[in-house]
Amino acid sequence: MNEKDNPTQQFVLDVERSERNRFVEAIFCEGKNLEQISQIIQMMMEKGENVFGTRLEKEKAIELVKQFQGFEYHSLSRTFSLMQKPPPLLKGTLAILAAGTSDTPVAEEAHQLAKFYGVDVKCFYDVGVAGIHRLLKRLPEIEVCDVAIVVAGMEGALPTVLGGLVSMPIIACPTSVGYGLHLGGLTPLAAMLNSCAEGISVVNIDNGFGAACAALRILRK
Amino acid sequence: MNEKDNPTQQFVLDVERSERNRFVEAIFCEGKNLEQISQIIQMMMEKGENVFGTRLEKEKAIELVKQFQGFEYHSLSRTFSLMQKPPPLLKGTLAILAAGTSDTPVAEEAHQLAKFYGVDVKCFYDVGVAGIHRLLKRLPEIEVCDVAIVVAGMEGALPTVLGGLVSMPIIACPTSVGYGLHLGGLTPLAAMLNSCAEGISVVNIDNGFGAACAALRILRK
Amino acid sequence: MNEKDNPTQQFVLDVERSERNRFVEAIFCEGKNLEQISQIIQMMMEKGENVFGTRLEKEKAIELVKQFQGFEYHSLSRTFSLMQKPPPLLKGTLAILAAGTSDTPVAEEAHQLAKFYGVDVKCFYDVGVAGIHRLLKRLPEIEVCDVAIVVAGMEGALPTVLGGLVSMPIIACPTSVGYGLHLGGLTPLAAMLNSCAEGISVVNIDNGFGAACAALRILRK
Amino acid sequence: MNEKDNPTQQFVLDVERSERNRFVEAIFCEGKNLEQISQIIQMMMEKGENVFGTRLEKEKAIELVKQFQGFEYHSLSRTFSLMQKPPPLLKGTLAILAAGTSDTPVAEEAHQLAKFYGVDVKCFYDVGVAGIHRLLKRLPEIEVCDVAIVVAGMEGALPTVLGGLVSMPIIACPTSVGYGLHLGGLTPLAAMLNSCAEGISVVNIDNGFGAACAALRILRK
Amino acid sequence: MNEKDNPTQQFVLDVERSERNRFVEAIFCEGKNLEQISQIIQMMMEKGENVFGTRLEKEKAIELVKQFQGFEYHSLSRTFSLMQKPPPLLKGTLAILAAGTSDTPVAEEAHQLAKFYGVDVKCFYDVGVAGIHRLLKRLPEIEVCDVAIVVAGMEGALPTVLGGLVSMPIIACPTSVGYGLHLGGLTPLAAMLNSCAEGISVVNIDNGFGAACAALRILRK
Amino acid sequence: MNEKDNPTQQFVLDVERSERNRFVEAIFCEGKNLEQISQIIQMMMEKGENVFGTRLEKEKAIELVKQFQGFEYHSLSRTFSLMQKPPPLLKGTLAILAAGTSDTPVAEEAHQLAKFYGVDVKCFYDVGVAGIHRLLKRLPEIEVCDVAIVVAGMEGALPTVLGGLVSMPIIACPTSVGYGLHLGGLTPLAAMLNSCAEGISVVNIDNGFGAACAALRILRK
Amino acid sequence: MNEKDNPTQQFVLDVERSERNRFVEAIFCEGKNLEQISQIIQMMMEKGENVFGTRLEKEKAIELVKQFQGFEYHSLSRTFSLMQKPPPLLKGTLAILAAGTSDTPVAEEAHQLAKFYGVDVKCFYDVGVAGIHRLLKRLPEIEVCDVAIVVAGMEGALPTVLGGLVSMPIIACPTSVGYGLHLGGLTPLAAMLNSCAEGISVVNIDNGFGAACAALRILRK
Amino acid sequence: MNEKDNPTQQFVLDVERSERNRFVEAIFCEGKNLEQISQIIQMMMEKGENVFGTRLEKEKAIELVKQFQGFEYHSLSRTFSLMQKPPPLLKGTLAILAAGTSDTPVAEEAHQLAKFYGVDVKCFYDVGVAGIHRLLKRLPEIEVCDVAIVVAGMEGALPTVLGGLVSMPIIACPTSVGYGLHLGGLTPLAAMLNSCAEGISVVNIDNGFGAACAALRILRK
Repeated sequence: MNEKDNPTQQFVLDVERSERNRFVEAIFCEGKNLEQISQIIQMMMEKGENVFGTRLEKEKAIELVKQFQGFEYHSLSRTFSLMQKPPPLLKGTLAILAAGTSDTPVAEEAHQLAKFYGVDVKCFYDVGVAGIHRLLKRLPEIEVCDVAIVVAGMEGALPTVLGGLVSMPIIACPTSVGYGLHLGGLTPLAAMLNSCAEGISVVNIDNGFGAACAALRILRK
Repeated sequence: MNEKDNPTQQFVLDVERSERNRFVEAIFCEGKNLEQISQIIQMMMEKGENVFGTRLEKEKAIELVKQFQGFEYHSLSRTFSLMQKPPPLLKGTLAILAAGTSDTPVAEEAHQLAKFYGVDVKCFYDVGVAGIHRLLKRLPEIEVCDVAIVVAGMEGALPTVLGGLVSMPIIACPTSVGYGLHLGGLTPLAAMLNSCAEGISVVNIDNGFGAACAALRILRK
Repeated sequence: MNEKDNPTQQFVLDVERSERNRFVEAIFCEGKNLEQISQIIQMMMEKGENVFGTRLEKEKAIELVKQFQGFEYHSLSRTFSLMQKPPPLLKGTLAILAAGTSDTPVAEEAHQLAKFYGVDVKCFYDVGVAGIHRLLKRLPEIEVCDVAIVVAGMEGALPTVLGGLVSMPIIACPTSVGYGLHLGGLTPLAAMLNSCAEGISVVNIDNGFGAACAALRILRK
Repeated sequence: MNEKDNPTQQFVLDVERSERNRFVEAIFCEGKNLEQISQIIQMMMEKGENVFGTRLEKEKAIELVKQFQGFEYHSLSRTFSLMQKPPPLLKGTLAILAAGTSDTPVAEEAHQLAKFYGVDVKCFYDVGVAGIHRLLKRLPEIEVCDVAIVVAGMEGALPTVLGGLVSMPIIACPTSVGYGLHLGGLTPLAAMLNSCAEGISVVNIDNGFGAACAALRILRK
Repeated sequence: MNEKDNPTQQFVLDVERSERNRFVEAIFCEGKNLEQISQIIQMMMEKGENVFGTRLEKEKAIELVKQFQGFEYHSLSRTFSLMQKPPPLLKGTLAILAAGTSDTPVAEEAHQLAKFYGVDVKCFYDVGVAGIHRLLKRLPEIEVCDVAIVVAGMEGALPTVLGGLVSMPIIACPTSVGYGLHLGGLTPLAAMLNSCAEGISVVNIDNGFGAACAALRILRK
Repeated sequence: MNEKDNPTQQFVLDVERSERNRFVEAIFCEGKNLEQISQIIQMMMEKGENVFGTRLEKEKAIELVKQFQGFEYHSLSRTFSLMQKPPPLLKGTLAILAAGTSDTPVAEEAHQLAKFYGVDVKCFYDVGVAGIHRLLKRLPEIEVCDVAIVVAGMEGALPTVLGGLVSMPIIACPTSVGYGLHLGGLTPLAAMLNSCAEGISVVNIDNGFGAACAALRILRK
Repeated sequence: MNEKDNPTQQFVLDVERSERNRFVEAIFCEGKNLEQISQIIQMMMEKGENVFGTRLEKEKAIELVKQFQGFEYHSLSRTFSLMQKPPPLLKGTLAILAAGTSDTPVAEEAHQLAKFYGVDVKCFYDVGVAGIHRLLKRLPEIEVCDVAIVVAGMEGALPTVLGGLVSMPIIACPTSVGYGLHLGGLTPLAAMLNSCAEGISVVNIDNGFGAACAALRILRK
Repeated sequence: MNEKDNPTQQFVLDVERSERNRFVEAIFCEGKNLEQISQIIQMMMEKGENVFGTRLEKEKAIELVKQFQGFEYHSLSRTFSLMQKPPPLLKGTLAILAAGTSDTPVAEEAHQLAKFYGVDVKCFYDVGVAGIHRLLKRLPEIEVCDVAIVVAGMEGALPTVLGGLVSMPIIACPTSVGYGLHLGGLTPLAAMLNSCAEGISVVNIDNGFGAACAALRILRK
């Protein structure tokens, strides 16, 4: 087919940003084709960087596993990583709570990113507040952690209840799990922003990646 | 002033509806002037009906107290009643819960309407879930009631937590208490509709009146 | 493929909630894969529980029928049930009304759940208010029931008309049936919340399951 | 005060439009000050036109009554008219229905405009569908009219029920009467647009003026 | 597969409504399967009715053509008709205008329904206002018609311009043609409702069927 | 009253920005008190700058006129200016069109800002498209200008019609004039963004100031 | 006036929550009357607590200053405090950035709350990104702080730019400063949630209080 | 299959518009089938026009390449062109900036259209503000251009930062790149409309075509 030349996409690693905010560039794979993803991984490997990506479909992952040695895909969270050097050790423990089974893919996106940066993570899944005793039973394990990420869809009430029970920093992450007047996650997002528990801060819907980055900024201090 | 005749508003009591669904017509005072409200009260009194109204401003109430003997105004809920005959006795107890102090006007609208129809009411205020122990302490008193109305603004999580703890019918009533991405009460309304506790039903924002009517339909059975 | 271990999902039955609010956990199948659903069914069977699920696609149902004896799939409502013991008998009759043919899948979700819990159900379908005489003709049969679930999409007017005609509890369930400025069911939802008939309470869009649970809370009293 | 000259506003009557679509320009008074309104009335009087205006506050009306002989203000609908010549006679009768008392200001805006153009109007107020027998009783009077305007707030169900009962043209006019998830009238507007009765057309929220103009286009044929 | 019996769907023709509002029931095919559509057609044929349906996918149409003699499918508008008796003749001409090429499927839905009821239709397509001379050239042909349906997506300005040029009844029909902040057709819908031309009434987004029904109500007078 | 010290607000003129983008800082007066506005004017005067401000209430203007010699207030647009040196002369003419009388305050905000920077402006008011001949008559005067700002509320159709008639740059400015489903100006904003005329660019609702700045960027080239 | 007894509001200090999450209850004064606020202050003073409140109108503050010795009102942020004991010292410095002058009331709400809890605060106001050099100049002072709160209205871009320049925790707080398609602050809220800088977490619109609480959770670690 | 005749679609070139606003009609291919697109290309070729189209899927492009000699498809932007005569030369240079890799398809739609009309274009991709130094480094190259198109998704902050740094006309084009509370591009659209940089004008979401047309109107002056 007689196709016009597409402009050569030249991905340039934003070195200055990485030095300043201490995050290596992660690859958001949604809307990128296999060639683009592959090209970026190649470039980062040449610079000796560890590589992390999100929202990678299984079909593409199968191809990338063949191309890159050490490429690991985590299917539940649709993330991947490729380690060239061990991450620096970080003090402190990150608690990740998820309200329901359907929220675990987002919780695991946070989990994988945190592991990528060497964070010690404890997961507390299926502790939604419709069965409040599930949360109360795990509280002693949770309150000894240093930061908490709380992932919830539906009505998004879990961060509020936890926020009244512990004094640690809490990063709330709403998910798009729900239907009807759920508005694609706007409901738990708005519920979390309107929490009557003091000092809950919030990231975008389904943004497990961002929640983990916010936790990292805290743990790195 | 040379004003054209307004059409004579002739309020007609909807007798057929009252006989069928057993609610006397309540007067929604918002947007009605003093003359209109006064005229409707007069007409209902002539038929020997008890009279109930909502959203009555204090200024108008002061005038109506002068006009009608037995007219009682409840300022917190902005409701009024005028009893000409005692209401029929109803079996069962209605629990009304409110999450925060600012939610009490709506809770009291429900309370006053329920009292108007002879319902036995128990109020549980300031039991929001950011301090979960407040709710847990009152649970034994709540769970012996027959129906619960749960009023909450902000993130609207109280009905969900209660719904996992008791088996009685629960009518959730969101309030417009909140700000920012609260959207005038849409946030707790949507949270209640998306509750992961089974069998929560919901009325409109700030609709304490409707919540009490729904409870009445249940208690009358 | 070289995939990282996913965390072992360990579904834990929320026994404490079931004892308190008298609902066994239902399986919301949307977004769960066959293995997850199968695993949860297995666990519930081992505890001797009856099992109920919603939003199950036909393809998965075909597999599950092979795996589990007694597994029954209801294709119109996309629900399934697996009975290990007869449900306790409940007094009272539940009326389920649906406005149009396209609303019947949601109405049937309510129907199936109610049957699962041993409720006596009478269905009144195709009684939408654009042909008001259809409803009026069936009224004598409806008004002898104890609770009504009213399912409607489009403009969602049916609960209002019924609410003026009967005194029983009414649970309105909007559906996503409509197009244009229907906003995925927000239109009938909002119409039902703004009903001028007294005491209509509402569940989420397409939430036949929740409507039946709300009815159960009433019938169990 | 040292104020810069405002540009001289020169209102120009759009004669060409009036000749083509047969409506004289009406004055939408909201956001216009007394001088502007007065100036436009003056200009139209000089051309020998009848004058009609909407959304005129009482304070301004009191002044205008003093300025212009024959100026008539209708306070319920906040419209005014000033007749210099009798309107041409129009065949046919216009039915105007309103669901509730609070909807009558909008219904009367339609009524006054129709009268201004010489239309024979019959009003049917307080016929909302929560008391369906009110509508059914008046049906014989309604169905002999030639066009119907149906005004309703809250859930906006009246046009749908009427639309199944009569074959005449129906213009539905939603009102902003309601609260909570009413969204300023979006709820009845959306309900009317999604009506399952065939051939309902709709005008903007609170637009009694526009509803009457649409009826006029039909009656003039 | 071991499937539970679905309740026998028994479609009942709403004879009373048809007699009253003079529309035979049309079949909205979206969300109905082939069996359901076929069954309804069969029933209507047995009553001797003409049959009309909307939103029928081509795949289903191919099957129905085989089943029913005289079944005609119109692919652009996705409507079908099956005539058993000639429609009654109607006086008057209906003008259907469409702003752009992409709006013609909706315009044709109106066209086909009008033809089904025996209306004389004149189509004026590709007369959008970004090229205003296209409309002005066709004006003499348009203004001799009796009613106009105006179909437009994008910014939806065509009904406003036409409304200032002619005095006939105008039914505006917005379409979902557009992208970005078009909101699925909300933009032209809102534009039409806010038209500064007097007396434009509006139907739902993409509702060519409803526009034609509204025109029919007018032409039948 | 015993009030804590408020932090001393120290307004710092952003000199670097002014040098780069050639706009002096304008004072957005909404939400600023008299002292703040006065202080900023003082500071700018000391630097020898001309001063311009928007959204200034008349009450504050009356005070400022007393404080500052040469302070001029334009009440229709609620803008003010204070010239210390003549603006540089700019080549080219700016056409400002407004659809209706109620849109002129926004049009005048653009007009006053343009005059402040020495632009030659021609105003064309009351040329809305419901009376299309008004626009067509003025077209020869408009098309010789170099840039056009088009201000419109309601359905916002004027930029589209003009955009098909002229080749100059067009900056569309929606206004909040309208009601019902107007959504505070979202309707004309969305209509303008969806214009089928090529190359219309848009500024925020009621942002006459921004429209003039965009025109200035063009005229300065 | 003959008013029914309002239920005695008995505010109960939520001691258990305070012990757990280390925040004393703050008084949200919006919607509370003078008596209610006064009563809560009294009760907290009796328990020996320091008292903090937000959204207090000046009129009420003037009265409270008279009632309570040591009551201090901060008019710009509309907060008050009443210290009975010195706050515990906290290590670390909190940077508070505000984009524009109009954002300072929200920034000061955060500032006052932080001071109430003994935090060392550095304010960086008027550093919005339309004049990017203002931010770059202050960067050395900012990057030595331990946590940053970033307050911005309009387009809300400041947290993104800062997030690429520093590695500390960043809490973004959108404000309702803006107009047109600003949607009461939804625009900067959504912009902050969609930031392409890693690890920005967000609080509700105008919620300076919550931002400071989130910072406190971090500094207390 | 027995299909009714579809009305013959007769595309008519809008010659008058092209002469007036100097844009040849572009083909918006979304929602048009291969036959329709082919027919329009044919007609334009016969008139000797150059042809340009947007949103063409690859599958259709492959067919059209076979049909028309000189047909060129640009896959990244999904545009095509077919040149029959060289475009007139235009003075001036257009800068096109894109914030992220995912925004390049929209940027390239602008690029291709500009090239089609003979504009000299310089592209600056991957200059988003989370890494502000990327933009600052390229500034000398950017500020010598005559007009800038700025394409950005996510939080859409790039036009604001650029707007404070340069004085040239800036056309901002938001993209739908983002997720969660991104609302399909509404977030960057609203951010751009609320920019605190003076004189940014905006086109619809993903409307690279419109941005280029707006730039052309400026460059043609």
